[in-house]
Amino acid sequence: MKLKELAERLGCRLVGDPDIEISGVSEIQNARSGDLTFLTNPKYRKFLKTTKASAVLLEKEIPDLKISQLVCSEPYVAFAKALNLFYPEKLPEPGISEKASVSPTAEIAEDCYIGDFAFIGQNVKIGKGVKIFPGVYIGDNCEIGDHTVIFPNVTIYSGTRIGRFVRIHSGTVIGSDGFGYAFSKEEKKIYKVPQTGGVVIEDFVEIGANTTIDRGTIGDTVIGEGTKIDNLVQVGHNVKIGKYCFIVSQVGISGSTRIGDFVTLAGKVGVAGHIEIASNVTVAAKSGITKSIKEPGTYAGFPVRPYREWRKIQALIDRLPEIYEKIRKVLKG
Amino acid sequence: MKLKELAERLGCRLVGDPDIEISGVSEIQNARSGDLTFLTNPKYRKFLKTTKASAVLLEKEIPDLKISQLVCSEPYVAFAKALNLFYPEKLPEPGISEKASVSPTAEIAEDCYIGDFAFIGQNVKIGKGVKIFPGVYIGDNCEIGDHTVIFPNVTIYSGTRIGRFVRIHSGTVIGSDGFGYAFSKEEKKIYKVPQTGGVVIEDFVEIGANTTIDRGTIGDTVIGEGTKIDNLVQVGHNVKIGKYCFIVSQVGISGSTRIGDFVTLAGKVGVAGHIEIASNVTVAAKSGITKSIKEPGTYAGFPVRPYREWRKIQALIDRLPEIYEKIRKVLKG
Amino acid sequence: MKLKELAERLGCRLVGDPDIEISGVSEIQNARSGDLTFLTNPKYRKFLKTTKASAVLLEKEIPDLKISQLVCSEPYVAFAKALNLFYPEKLPEPGISEKASVSPTAEIAEDCYIGDFAFIGQNVKIGKGVKIFPGVYIGDNCEIGDHTVIFPNVTIYSGTRIGRFVRIHSGTVIGSDGFGYAFSKEEKKIYKVPQTGGVVIEDFVEIGANTTIDRGTIGDTVIGEGTKIDNLVQVGHNVKIGKYCFIVSQVGISGSTRIGDFVTLAGKVGVAGHIEIASNVTVAAKSGITKSIKEPGTYAGFPVRPYREWRKIQALIDRLPEIYEKIRKVLKG
Repeated sequence: MKLKELAERLGCRLVGDPDIEISGVSEIQNARSGDLTFLTNPKYRKFLKTTKASAVLLEKEIPDLKISQLVCSEPYVAFAKALNLFYPEKLPEPGISEKASVSPTAEIAEDCYIGDFAFIGQNVKIGKGVKIFPGVYIGDNCEIGDHTVIFPNVTIYSGTRIGRFVRIHSGTVIGSDGFGYAFSKEEKKIYKVPQTGGVVIEDFVEIGANTTIDRGTIGDTVIGEGTKIDNLVQVGHNVKIGKYCFIVSQVGISGSTRIGDFVTLAGKVGVAGHIEIASNVTVAAKSGITKSIKEPGTYAGFPVRPYREWRKIQALIDRLPEIYEKIRKVLKG
Repeated sequence: MKLKELAERLGCRLVGDPDIEISGVSEIQNARSGDLTFLTNPKYRKFLKTTKASAVLLEKEIPDLKISQLVCSEPYVAFAKALNLFYPEKLPEPGISEKASVSPTAEIAEDCYIGDFAFIGQNVKIGKGVKIFPGVYIGDNCEIGDHTVIFPNVTIYSGTRIGRFVRIHSGTVIGSDGFGYAFSKEEKKIYKVPQTGGVVIEDFVEIGANTTIDRGTIGDTVIGEGTKIDNLVQVGHNVKIGKYCFIVSQVGISGSTRIGDFVTLAGKVGVAGHIEIASNVTVAAKSGITKSIKEPGTYAGFPVRPYREWRKIQALIDRLPEIYEKIRKVLKG
Repeated sequence: MKLKELAERLGCRLVGDPDIEISGVSEIQNARSGDLTFLTNPKYRKFLKTTKASAVLLEKEIPDLKISQLVCSEPYVAFAKALNLFYPEKLPEPGISEKASVSPTAEIAEDCYIGDFAFIGQNVKIGKGVKIFPGVYIGDNCEIGDHTVIFPNVTIYSGTRIGRFVRIHSGTVIGSDGFGYAFSKEEKKIYKVPQTGGVVIEDFVEIGANTTIDRGTIGDTVIGEGTKIDNLVQVGHNVKIGKYCFIVSQVGISGSTRIGDFVTLAGKVGVAGHIEIASNVTVAAKSGITKSIKEPGTYAGFPVRPYREWRKIQALIDRLPEIYEKIRKVLKG
């Protein structure tokens, strides 16, 4: 594809040679002639002088750059679009494997792929264009919306409802029992609290690998439209996550907590049960959220605080040895 | 079921109309007419006035409440029993699938369900009424006690012994190699330490989804009777967990550590190797346990301390900016 | 095996009776007559007097010990070798199951085992002596080197290249999509960043259970030769881990980070994205690494600091209540 055409498709302003042929997209350090590369993280700016790429996507034109430039206000978005153009995802062709186990009561719309050793339970409803890879288990009475993709060895317990254009990566488990037990002091006995609710995954959600989302005790666990969940995340029973959230790897969210829209929880954040997190909240990695967060903003620490307060405390902790020395002198003096 | 009969079955005192018909159990916010609801967490008390439920389970009678009340000393236990009454778990009927792979040397007692694509290795012994879902792998020489349920896509390595009435959720791996390597400085070479022990899971244990329990190096890793383990928990080689413990999601327990009975480790707790935790210890979420805990009690922090000490230190950390200001004035003055 | 022969094979000096027959290896507390045991952790020294083992592996001769001694400079290495001698690993015999699904375009060398319900995609290349257990999924165009073992229910996405003598434990997912999204403020829309790279696992790597290793966005995620990864570890897209590293359970490494050789990350460590960790770095459990570490050494804390500094700060935090009392007296006085 000529750079001129690519610029048009990506909605970028072209600085340089419109007739260069672009054949792929590469990281700035490893790019070769014919590649488009990108600059979104300033850490990689140093490679601009040595990259062998033929063109670079960036936010602001750089004078005297040797290679051609595609300039736009959101270069990372343009980068995502460029990758889609050059490397469209290859998914299996439609067809239901004879090595799959599909209940005769399941309703499967046109153009679906169901792979070898996949199990489709009773009364399951699968929309059109759905891809179900080998080794996937889908329990009774599940519903799966159009164009959803379920990668190998995923387990979906009975009664789960999944929307359209959802992607669920391998090893993820949806609808397992929540962790609910009632200890009777009188009888000295633990009763299991039956987990009778379900899970609802709304449209355009993507869920990473080996994540676990428990079914509700009564009522549903809900993952809102467009929310993205990374690998090895734990979502407890009856949690409600809003729309367009980012839940990064190894986050754990305890039961019955409600999270608003456009919330980002960075890696390893822990969230207590039965609390609420407002919309437009961002929480830094490794934080622990023990109480409801009512105001939008950025938070950090354990227990979590507004980011600025946390920074201040953190700086003082760093200086403790020095501060202590000063105090010691005064106390002695 | 009439409320009167329900009160008898749950061992509750009835305040209100004994002849109301109860048809289900619901959360207090979402209940409809005909539902039983419950009040165990005071956060939800505000919904008592507006709930549409016909009756509520609670610990102490509330005067002038519009709806009927079932009063008992352990309402959460009664709630668990009510859910069991109204929503008994539906498990697959007995039968061994022709699409399973069952070794001819396996001994399988009556009334078992073995699903499609399940693999049962050589000399495996499976007790009566066991349910093994699709995609489960059970290695050679395993033993599985009566009435145990193993959900889809679980992996049980060879030589694992599992008791009666155990439940293991999807994606969990039991008996994988512990993380043991010996680095030879002289040979500049890493030797793998063979993991030759096994895993013992005692009766009435429940294990969540995508948890990992490693086999012992020599000798067994043991999960004691009635212990409940949540999702995404790591149990290292040769760990011994006692009876009736609760191990919450994303906890990690390093090799050879011994945990007593009735221990609760809340979410994301990390436990060092080769230490001992006494019975009746509770540790708060995100704590790090680096040394043995010899006294029963509640602990928190990293490194872990008695809960009260941790609260005191935590409060001072919160006040560091203010304290520092005071000190600064004195030092200047 | 006579103790004399065992001493020779393990390269140890024998103190005691050369003609004792040794038939197994046991933990010091549980050993019986005829067992070899070992002493590498001083915590277990107290059992030396009461152990029923016939011989013990240790670093320095202990005078007047009742049992025979095998003395060498690296007893833990000798212990690993002894376990290999007495308990060689039993893996399935070669053979390709008729219940597996193997693409006719796959190239499979001699002496491989491919178990029931395993799926081998198009153009996959599998080296000689490879063992692929039941329920494993191997996507199109993967390469797997000689003598590699892949345990049950592992998922390998398309295009992954795995070296020789690699071991991958159950439930692990390699090559799932990295967590990459571009949010367009202008279009108010989230674009998925296609994950078009691959994963390279070099020779002699071992990976635990339920770990996740994402494919690169463009370019590869790389796990270097001889590196050992524990259970439930997250490795983000485009991470490069060097040679002979130990990555302990529940560690999370964010995207594009580069880790040198001989690095140890202890349990639950979190590593930010786009940073570098030098070779020969060791980081204590539960630490959080937010910036590049340029010097070899031992580090701890969040944010991570040289271990000694962290100890000093930690000690002062412990003493905060006492220090605060002193200050209060001065401020009042």
